[in-house]
Amino acid sequence: MTITITAFDRSPDGGRGLARDTRVRWALEEVGQPYEVRPVAFRALKEPAHLSLNPFGQIPTYEENGLVLFETGSIVLHIAGRHKGLLPEAPDSRARAITWMFAAVNTIEPPILEYANARLLESDRPWNEERLSIIADRVRDRLRQLSARLGAAEWLDGGFSAGDLMMVHVLQRLKPSGLLDEFPNLAAYVERGEERPAYKRAFAAQLAFNTRKPL
Amino acid sequence: MTITITAFDRSPDGGRGLARDTRVRWALEEVGQPYEVRPVAFRALKEPAHLSLNPFGQIPTYEENGLVLFETGSIVLHIAGRHKGLLPEAPDSRARAITWMFAAVNTIEPPILEYANARLLESDRPWNEERLSIIADRVRDRLRQLSARLGAAEWLDGGFSAGDLMMVHVLQRLKPSGLLDEFPNLAAYVERGEERPAYKRAFAAQLAFNTRKPL
Repeated sequence: MTITITAFDRSPDGGRGLARDTRVRWALEEVGQPYEVRPVAFRALKEPAHLSLNPFGQIPTYEENGLVLFETGSIVLHIAGRHKGLLPEAPDSRARAITWMFAAVNTIEPPILEYANARLLESDRPWNEERLSIIADRVRDRLRQLSARLGAAEWLDGGFSAGDLMMVHVLQRLKPSGLLDEFPNLAAYVERGEERPAYKRAFAAQLAFNTRKPL
Repeated sequence: MTITITAFDRSPDGGRGLARDTRVRWALEEVGQPYEVRPVAFRALKEPAHLSLNPFGQIPTYEENGLVLFETGSIVLHIAGRHKGLLPEAPDSRARAITWMFAAVNTIEPPILEYANARLLESDRPWNEERLSIIADRVRDRLRQLSARLGAAEWLDGGFSAGDLMMVHVLQRLKPSGLLDEFPNLAAYVERGEERPAYKRAFAAQLAFNTRKPL
């Protein structure tokens, strides 16, 4: 079985690990599965060949024996369902871990991406500063709730799971903003994720990929 | 086995079916499972009793024999995993249907909610109109891609699945904006969802609930 994922030929973050292929690399490292990476140039993201893999022209995609998947939540869940190491065996614990995967992408990530988009795409508007402060408060509301639930625990629900993997990667995007550091237990939680050997291998792989000679 | 979900004591939409309990009601109707609904008053959403079920103070939650879940994606996936009717049996088709669940909540819903939030929460700002037009274009980009993928098909990937259920409910929020009608195949897709007997039962149940005498 060969697993092939796609990634930006050169990630806009230059290898800081924020592109979403890092999530899939990390999941594959956690379960010990080798994979190949096919680079996609920016101009090719919206071309028919790539749109046939992901109709929204994004990376990563996942190919395995004719199966094609997109959406990191779906890919990570698929990997976790086929290999041990990312989800607990007990059905109830498993369902709760999957709940955290959805919470990461549907409750925590949207205001964080809205904040990032406002910084990136609307920075030339006269109202940008006012808006950023509105969205920062929305992000803080979510972080406060997540911080309260995590408390002094190591991971969100028992042992490390695919839910933590997704949540840590979603939170990482906040690091330059300083918002994460307002919640020390969340900052420590992200650090715990980054200290995992599988994360380190995934990070190193994407860094090497993003600093190699481009296409 | 008793399934209990929570819903707003009175939905802000007055019973138009946009509150997220409708997704879970619809899923339970598709698989023929009875359920009970416990109303939660707005002031109680952020109180400890409800936060113990959903740390983000949202509805719906799902309780079944001591298992507690939140996030509609996770709840619908759990229901689909336990009962026939919402996911294909073949593993690859199943993984692709789950991909559409994540696409609904992580790719299509965020710009739609950003648009709805801008209309609702920032309408008093002098720059609101300019921003709405920026976000409307982001929504259009996603709808254009979704419309191209759907084409003339009835559902997103083969037969109706939990992926369609989530996608239809996410798109419904756009109806008052007129944006959905710019893509006739998507408007027809949403209508097909609404014509399903299970959807009709779910819609009628939430309407009766939201127009009953409140707590």
